[in-house]
Amino acid sequence: MAERREPVTLAHYLWTRLRQCGVNSVHGVPGDYNLNLLDCISSTGLHWVGSCNELNGGYAADGYARVKGMGAIVTTGGVGELSAINTHAGAYSEQVSLVHIVGSPALRIRENGKFAMHHTLGNTDFGVFKKMFEPISAAHESLSDVRDAPKQIDYALRKCWISSRPVYIDIPSDMANEIVEGAALATSLDLSYAINDKKVESQALASLQKQLDNAKRACFLLDLGAARQRLDTEIQELVSKSRIPTFVTPLAQGLVNESEPNHGGLYAGKGSHPGVQEFLESSDLVIHVGRLDTDVTTYLGSAKIKRASRISIFSEKVEMEDSSYSELHLRAFLLSMLDQLDFSKVSIEEFRPHTRNGDVSSDNEPAITQNWLWPYIGTGLEKGDIVLTDTGTASFGIFDTKLPPESMLINISLWASIGYSLPSAQGAALAAKDDKSGRRTIVFQGDGSFQLTCQEISTMIKHRLRVIIFIICNNGYTIERAVHDTREDYNDILLWNYKDILHVFDADSQYSRSFQVKTKTELRDLLGQKDFSHYPGVQLVELYTPELDVPAPLQRLADMITGRAPS
Amino acid sequence: MAERREPVTLAHYLWTRLRQCGVNSVHGVPGDYNLNLLDCISSTGLHWVGSCNELNGGYAADGYARVKGMGAIVTTGGVGELSAINTHAGAYSEQVSLVHIVGSPALRIRENGKFAMHHTLGNTDFGVFKKMFEPISAAHESLSDVRDAPKQIDYALRKCWISSRPVYIDIPSDMANEIVEGAALATSLDLSYAINDKKVESQALASLQKQLDNAKRACFLLDLGAARQRLDTEIQELVSKSRIPTFVTPLAQGLVNESEPNHGGLYAGKGSHPGVQEFLESSDLVIHVGRLDTDVTTYLGSAKIKRASRISIFSEKVEMEDSSYSELHLRAFLLSMLDQLDFSKVSIEEFRPHTRNGDVSSDNEPAITQNWLWPYIGTGLEKGDIVLTDTGTASFGIFDTKLPPESMLINISLWASIGYSLPSAQGAALAAKDDKSGRRTIVFQGDGSFQLTCQEISTMIKHRLRVIIFIICNNGYTIERAVHDTREDYNDILLWNYKDILHVFDADSQYSRSFQVKTKTELRDLLGQKDFSHYPGVQLVELYTPELDVPAPLQRLADMITGRAPS
Repeated sequence: MAERREPVTLAHYLWTRLRQCGVNSVHGVPGDYNLNLLDCISSTGLHWVGSCNELNGGYAADGYARVKGMGAIVTTGGVGELSAINTHAGAYSEQVSLVHIVGSPALRIRENGKFAMHHTLGNTDFGVFKKMFEPISAAHESLSDVRDAPKQIDYALRKCWISSRPVYIDIPSDMANEIVEGAALATSLDLSYAINDKKVESQALASLQKQLDNAKRACFLLDLGAARQRLDTEIQELVSKSRIPTFVTPLAQGLVNESEPNHGGLYAGKGSHPGVQEFLESSDLVIHVGRLDTDVTTYLGSAKIKRASRISIFSEKVEMEDSSYSELHLRAFLLSMLDQLDFSKVSIEEFRPHTRNGDVSSDNEPAITQNWLWPYIGTGLEKGDIVLTDTGTASFGIFDTKLPPESMLINISLWASIGYSLPSAQGAALAAKDDKSGRRTIVFQGDGSFQLTCQEISTMIKHRLRVIIFIICNNGYTIERAVHDTREDYNDILLWNYKDILHVFDADSQYSRSFQVKTKTELRDLLGQKDFSHYPGVQLVELYTPELDVPAPLQRLADMITGRAPS
Repeated sequence: MAERREPVTLAHYLWTRLRQCGVNSVHGVPGDYNLNLLDCISSTGLHWVGSCNELNGGYAADGYARVKGMGAIVTTGGVGELSAINTHAGAYSEQVSLVHIVGSPALRIRENGKFAMHHTLGNTDFGVFKKMFEPISAAHESLSDVRDAPKQIDYALRKCWISSRPVYIDIPSDMANEIVEGAALATSLDLSYAINDKKVESQALASLQKQLDNAKRACFLLDLGAARQRLDTEIQELVSKSRIPTFVTPLAQGLVNESEPNHGGLYAGKGSHPGVQEFLESSDLVIHVGRLDTDVTTYLGSAKIKRASRISIFSEKVEMEDSSYSELHLRAFLLSMLDQLDFSKVSIEEFRPHTRNGDVSSDNEPAITQNWLWPYIGTGLEKGDIVLTDTGTASFGIFDTKLPPESMLINISLWASIGYSLPSAQGAALAAKDDKSGRRTIVFQGDGSFQLTCQEISTMIKHRLRVIIFIICNNGYTIERAVHDTREDYNDILLWNYKDILHVFDADSQYSRSFQVKTKTELRDLLGQKDFSHYPGVQLVELYTPELDVPAPLQRLADMITGRAPS
């Protein structure tokens, strides 16, 4: 073996690099193929979370990544990695920097080949599960040689960071303690982003400037790609500086401060805030940043922005009506837009947002309805809040919630995996704790989705996290009742006593407490309690709404799907 | 469209065929891509389970399949199918007939291609997840043409049944209600097994007979493949008739009646019951039925059966020292063995089993220890019991439990996915209910594994199932403490009040109750309670054992892994 200048174990190398990427806590579940990796995790200053199961751990690492910039999960080969594959694919779909580290059977056992190992198909094919991750990973590295391992780790982590996509790192159990060259650790990992060809970029910017100067009604439309560039501050600055009306799709809601005078609201075709579709679709210049058209962002294709008016800034190219600029990286281009575009001559047609859907004042029934709830909830949010909404009535209801400044919304409308938000809230709250930011984490989810991943409240309590959980109790999958127009009983669930689950994890109620609200008054009273806002542990609120009640944006989509309204 | 003689919807066709295969209950989670399929599920006489999440639903369908012969799960494309992929791969590994039906985005939307659908990677690639299932499916069918769909369904179900492997059926949401030709439904699906070439089979049998006649110490070793042929009765008959000593590997434990005089116990190399390794490895003829060598069945390769003495009956071939017979199907061959082999001249050297590991009488400490527990538990089991042991101390401890006649052990030592047994018990108990067999379902699992999938107790209560759950409370992943020889705190879990979880699902304790036992006396008293055995609902028992206490078979393996004992 060649002499190492700075000999370190492979595991030490990996964990140190992860820390350099800003990851302080690692999620996952121990399994015999990854124990060698875990042995030295705390000695490198990392914090091991210990998730209840791998899917939840993956969701949590995803939530952590959205707040901290990157998250990591460790699983064991076969059973563990497959349990987490949903969240890995979700991170790819939703553009999240998730590092998935898989401890797999030892190389010396693979070479032996005399018997099948546990967690395999009963044969000696050790590549079958690994291959499943290829199409959903920005980098996909199998470590088998100590000479290459550090570079492979560096490559994967860098790729994860700059592409905002998950990566897969396979580490055989007998590699973890092998000695590798650690000299590179003295310098932080190079996480510099791709830069653009100046000539191409200048041409695109010049054309954009010209169109801006000529436009009578220019506006920004911010979409998923814009929300995953770790450029929140810069985008905010661009929006403020430009003064042109700015809209967000459901995949970018919360990206910019909704209190800015030129924040126009949410655009999603026929699911837009009142007046937005008309304004935006008659604009003569829509600068669509981070464009990714989905069924929800277009409300089933009902979004009709004129091709001639749209400049689409995709992840790796800029498209205008008559020209296309390829190999332009979104992030670098956005920074150049901020730096170089001149908005001083842009004619500004203001958009004054109407009220949103729903109305807090007009609904005088005691029972909580979704159309009342979502605008009302906005009044209880605070600056910096991290808000999560699970797929269901919450993911549409939140359209009508005004988010406070510096808040963050995690609403995975594209991947739309029910049960995601509770574990993700655990990860997000842990990230806030690691950052010492004091941010609150608040999750809204239906009772159906709560049942998928409920045990991750245990992890919140184990790590003394501060999370407010609203469970919308409406007896099951109300979104499916709405979009499928039936009352089939497969949408019903067993009614749980959700509140009581805290006693399972926290018998003495030291770190958690629960509430039940069935009326508007009760909810008002709860939010008005001074210590509700700043309670340091887990607060679980059972919030009852009628079984078939859905918020207006979901009702609109449901009407389109079921043919009650034209699409 | 061609005229149909018996027009039925595709969904109706599918469910009817499933019923013909003996499936009465279908597991899964509704999602918008599968709702059309679910709409007509109850009208075909099938019972919809409604699982808390897809992984649990898959495990449950696996447990159901082991009892009923086949199980089914319905998921939604992308998020749902991926959440269940662990259990799908596990069914492949462990040779279980699991039908996985995936409702996927409508064909008309795929053809449109204008925007990305939810549950996708944000593009229009609708094949990416489907491909992941190919290497873990015996059949992999995508339905897109009504003319072919019935045949594709028939092919997949038949393949699932006869191969004892999972199959994947992708049904776009707009295909479910399409009309297909249903005339074939009048006849039950052809589930006849493959037959063998008579000439090849005769040669193999003749050779086997000759070796039997010449052997001085012949014996059977039953392994995984034998346990998945729906031939339990016939194998029992073969063993009884032969009178030669019969051993089982950990993957076939419980397959034959342990009270038969020639049942010799468990063989797993150095993990065998006392005396078994010596006897079997000095036998001059070991008929190894359904052979599948794994780390656990060979105790890390310490099994040393002489090549010259072993006849290996694999799934599709028979291997002897000097000859190999290919394309011989295990099932057909087994039936021919029963029918044609003459055991009258076989010289029988009896094997008198020693006591097992552990000893109920010699341990007088009040606390429950694993070496006391497992032999003792056998005294509380009843004829016909379905016993499940989760991966951990339970999956090894059960080696030393004497199982009663007609019982069944579900112990997935090959796939070894922790958290499997609780949802699987739900499926197994439902299968027993569907069969009106009155069998009890009893699950043993550690507290660590309980936390992965705990919510499936809800499904047990929802369907009024009868299950006894023993949670071995030892503060986490004790198997990992044993095999890795450390006390790293990543093996610790948050201590839950497990008993209290019943109140979450069943506030009035109408269908469930709980117990806590910390001493041998308490456990004896509990098992001695008359109504414990026949309580009709869910009984949860917290059973405390010391944190580092493991049963002897696991200690032996751990000593080999950590080098404390030679392997």
